[in-house]
Amino acid sequence: MAVGWFYLSCLVLGSLGSMCILFTIYWMQYWRGGFAWDGSTYMFNWHPVLMVTGMVVVYSAASLVYRLPQSWVGPKLPWKLLHAALHLMAFILTVLGLVAVFKFHNHNKIANLYSLHSWLGITAVFLFACQWFLGFAVFLLPWAPVWLRSLLKPIHVFFGSSILSLAITSVISGINEKLFFSLKNGTNQYSHLPSEAIFANSTGVLVVVFGLLVLYILLASSWKRPEPGMLTDRQLPLQLRPGSRPFPVTYKPVAVRQPCEPW
Amino acid sequence: MAVGWFYLSCLVLGSLGSMCILFTIYWMQYWRGGFAWDGSTYMFNWHPVLMVTGMVVVYSAASLVYRLPQSWVGPKLPWKLLHAALHLMAFILTVLGLVAVFKFHNHNKIANLYSLHSWLGITAVFLFACQWFLGFAVFLLPWAPVWLRSLLKPIHVFFGSSILSLAITSVISGINEKLFFSLKNGTNQYSHLPSEAIFANSTGVLVVVFGLLVLYILLASSWKRPEPGMLTDRQLPLQLRPGSRPFPVTYKPVAVRQPCEPW
Repeated sequence: MAVGWFYLSCLVLGSLGSMCILFTIYWMQYWRGGFAWDGSTYMFNWHPVLMVTGMVVVYSAASLVYRLPQSWVGPKLPWKLLHAALHLMAFILTVLGLVAVFKFHNHNKIANLYSLHSWLGITAVFLFACQWFLGFAVFLLPWAPVWLRSLLKPIHVFFGSSILSLAITSVISGINEKLFFSLKNGTNQYSHLPSEAIFANSTGVLVVVFGLLVLYILLASSWKRPEPGMLTDRQLPLQLRPGSRPFPVTYKPVAVRQPCEPW
Repeated sequence: MAVGWFYLSCLVLGSLGSMCILFTIYWMQYWRGGFAWDGSTYMFNWHPVLMVTGMVVVYSAASLVYRLPQSWVGPKLPWKLLHAALHLMAFILTVLGLVAVFKFHNHNKIANLYSLHSWLGITAVFLFACQWFLGFAVFLLPWAPVWLRSLLKPIHVFFGSSILSLAITSVISGINEKLFFSLKNGTNQYSHLPSEAIFANSTGVLVVVFGLLVLYILLASSWKRPEPGMLTDRQLPLQLRPGSRPFPVTYKPVAVRQPCEPW
């Protein structure tokens, strides 16, 4: 990947992620009266902000750690620690976001966990907790054998993207639901598309665009760290004789000269 | 991939896809009064059924055509025709699903395209239309040069998965929205989780599980058709000298003997 393209992608992702958070804060501050931690509707307002920040933006930043070329060389442990620490920060923000909505519901005698939004959201958080603890136990602590890590890694990667997809789906259904709850009186109905509705819908579109870009970068092979012993479309580790050090060769389908040696 | 695993995956996908359609039909028939094509609420009931069938299940089946190992050998044209025909069927069902909701809205003086659900849904359908016409013009008609196809293929693949993700997000926010509209009276409120709410929420969970499995199969390299001239984790086409026929070699990281010849 060209260096310019990499830095442009980082800039676009960083800007989109920041906009997702700032737009959600602005929506809650300007149209929904701001924030408090007292069980009122102002406490609920922390829920969208903390979920978008924790489960979408910080979660994405944590997931993308291994897509930085700097993480491809040298020891892997500092990058693993950064990956785990950022995910832990995302998880703490997410739990605070759940506390905000549960405390608001309980304070106002509103039922918990009935809508499809809440079913998918709580599933995403439950899977996130399992993923973090399993990742910590198997990939960060030193006890797990290589065969167990190799077995669990594709599952860890699959659930990583799946949890982000679930989180985005939950955020979208949550924004939609919140607007139907809030905008239902007189000329300020959701169906009349007042400025709040346009702004919040646009925030949802931003979250989707950001999430699709993150998922693309997570899944595109050109962004992945080349694994020792695994074939990628960028390099091929050739072992010239049994026991010798693998010899990395950049792959070009037609013009490259294959290094070779009789066995 | 083991043959048993492949057939098990097909069985699971087929069952899940059928259940998504049947559950949506049952929801609309049993709790929402069935179907008509007369502008009434019974006409609206076609909307969820046609969108789940067209934009999720048939769209997924069309996208997965190239994941059948039978499509990896022999001429590609029949598989391209099947891919295009199934996507056209998905698109026709989708358009009928849109007609159902627009006609219902217009007949009952309800505004169109104001919710986040509708914004994302109509974006998914618009991108689907662009994707189909571009795919037809570039990949099915014979005029496009190889360099243009190579340039557009990763974009076509990326938008294929993105449109499915958008469709699933739209379906989830749509089910959530429909339940808030329908279940708002007395003991039959959504928040009391009546049997309809549990059934429709479960249908949404099924759609998400089906969609995640389809996206995994679309993106996992072990399911992809090996492309001539492209390096995969299964085989490496070696060109022994300039102009000679590429020589396919199954890749095994350590024990394989590299075919080689002095230049």
